[in-house]
Amino acid sequence: MTSTIKAIPDIVIGRLPLYLRALAYMIEENREFVSSQELGDRLGISSVQIRKDLSYFGEFGKQGTGYEIQFLRQQLRQILHADKVWEIALVGAGDLGHALIRYEEFCEKGFCIAVVFDRDPQKIGRKMGGFEVFDAESIPTIVKERGIKVAIIAVPASEAQAVSDILVKAGVRAILNYAPITLSVPPKVQVQYINPIIQLQHMAYYLD
Amino acid sequence: MTSTIKAIPDIVIGRLPLYLRALAYMIEENREFVSSQELGDRLGISSVQIRKDLSYFGEFGKQGTGYEIQFLRQQLRQILHADKVWEIALVGAGDLGHALIRYEEFCEKGFCIAVVFDRDPQKIGRKMGGFEVFDAESIPTIVKERGIKVAIIAVPASEAQAVSDILVKAGVRAILNYAPITLSVPPKVQVQYINPIIQLQHMAYYLD
Repeated sequence: MTSTIKAIPDIVIGRLPLYLRALAYMIEENREFVSSQELGDRLGISSVQIRKDLSYFGEFGKQGTGYEIQFLRQQLRQILHADKVWEIALVGAGDLGHALIRYEEFCEKGFCIAVVFDRDPQKIGRKMGGFEVFDAESIPTIVKERGIKVAIIAVPASEAQAVSDILVKAGVRAILNYAPITLSVPPKVQVQYINPIIQLQHMAYYLD
Repeated sequence: MTSTIKAIPDIVIGRLPLYLRALAYMIEENREFVSSQELGDRLGISSVQIRKDLSYFGEFGKQGTGYEIQFLRQQLRQILHADKVWEIALVGAGDLGHALIRYEEFCEKGFCIAVVFDRDPQKIGRKMGGFEVFDAESIPTIVKERGIKVAIIAVPASEAQAVSDILVKAGVRAILNYAPITLSVPPKVQVQYINPIIQLQHMAYYLD
């Protein structure tokens, strides 16, 4: 990672996956070119913003014809490392963990659950959706051995920080956290939150 | 809603639920007062930002003692309409819908699933987690009759826009969308997205 790339605002990075997804839909529709205007209309983002965001990474479009969809998609996939397959450690084999294991889009998009952990003796050693559930005690060994960098936390809020600490110590650098708690992690570690309640409360503000 | 309140940036509104959640944890810890500094440290937000956000709504803290936690929580609950119970229409009774029905935090936080819809004849009329699954055809009637304003979409991407259109026509004003697609809705309707893939791709940018 060069220092130039590091200077790109995180909010810009956060929009690239949305562009990538919109482009994927357009390819399914057998489209070849798209203007920043049309891409913006699909996403509720201004065309100026889109051109500015993409200009951080190079000159992808042409005046008049717009962006070549396949090419732009390939470039964005490389930038986001979405052309790789990432092994995921899933911690928490409860109802939510079970639903996540069955969610096929993770692996279709390159985020493949590779190992599942829980601390419940009734679950450890049993199969869940094709995965053996491992003892959470073995997180340090297994995560380190397999070089896993990405984890999903699906444990209760009261356990999430402890699980996060163990994952980070084992080498995890990106955590998707479903537990309703803000995690404290070192700066080198990325965390994203799945927050349905927070999002519902946000919208309820606007309701009478 | 006054025009003064409308002028508050949406990004500020989006942080209020995070403050509310942090305050709830502090109450569980039997805390009485909190400084903007400590609240900020918990959430990874600067104390200046917190004071600025809260100042849109009034003068909640005192120099020296900080915020009285119970009072601030009560104020934020009112501002966010989190002191009400909202009935939720859940559309989609698949694996995800099932997991959402079992997710008790929704109703604990005032967002109570009230009615479940699906279009699969094998599911219609059957019970799922205590809820009868209704035919999606009856969304307009039931949602309008019950005056439901909030909905959760848990159907495949290909069906989500059509479902959204029907919900909006029936009077829904806030949609939490689990389908991996950007919805097109009128300006008066709020949409929030649950996007685990988008969030994972965002983080993967920073991985080697």
